[in-house]
Amino acid sequence: MRLTQFSDYAWRLLMYVADQEGQRTTIAEAAKANDISRSHLMKVAQRLGQEGFLKPSRGRKGGLVLGKPPEAITLGDVLRVTEPDFALVGCMAGDWCLFADRCNVPSTLDRALQAFLEVADRQTLACEPAVNKVVHAD
Amino acid sequence: MRLTQFSDYAWRLLMYVADQEGQRTTIAEAAKANDISRSHLMKVAQRLGQEGFLKPSRGRKGGLVLGKPPEAITLGDVLRVTEPDFALVGCMAGDWCLFADRCNVPSTLDRALQAFLEVADRQTLACEPAVNKVVHAD
Repeated sequence: MRLTQFSDYAWRLLMYVADQEGQRTTIAEAAKANDISRSHLMKVAQRLGQEGFLKPSRGRKGGLVLGKPPEAITLGDVLRVTEPDFALVGCMAGDWCLFADRCNVPSTLDRALQAFLEVADRQTLACEPAVNKVVHAD
Repeated sequence: MRLTQFSDYAWRLLMYVADQEGQRTTIAEAAKANDISRSHLMKVAQRLGQEGFLKPSRGRKGGLVLGKPPEAITLGDVLRVTEPDFALVGCMAGDWCLFADRCNVPSTLDRALQAFLEVADRQTLACEPAVNKVVHAD
């Protein structure tokens, strides 16, 4: 059972931006520091920007800052937008199965997923030891 | 977030075997009925056999029967042996990360995973509507 690399990179990018204590950060800097491909990280940043977790910083030099205070960014909320889906088994994505409509697995996995996300909802970016000194940049 | 196809097939094979109400089932029959490659299903059956969820049936014609009563086979226990790992993000599999040792994500995801598996532990093969008439074959 794995989360996508996209989600992994998303949380790392948010931590990196938060770790700059309100200074703007560029994708190029974040990509280099995290040893992640710049084009891949650009896509992650775009998705996080669409959802308001990141925003462009104003000023002479372009860059990124957090779009919300770190205590308002939960791991659960980030996963909900960075995971392409939560179809844990094929039938949940519409694949044929001999036991469709007479199997409890989809409803059990759905409840299990909710339990998983409830735990992830309790972790905010502000809980991270690496970024606990961060100041939100408006 | 997805489980492996291996896990998906494992639960479907167990349901299929249970659905035969104690009759022996062959891999060939199960593969055909479930539209799954026979060689893939053979590997799934071997793993389930190693862990005691399936066993060869005695008699003239070879086949498979459940290795335990359906009420003793939980979805959680099956996932624990069919998923290759539960390294939800790269660092949990040993990949380098800038924030290693100062990040709460691995411990949070580990707790989230336990919550997920606790829900899966409550579903047994006997709970499945498709197989609730099954009789365990000793």
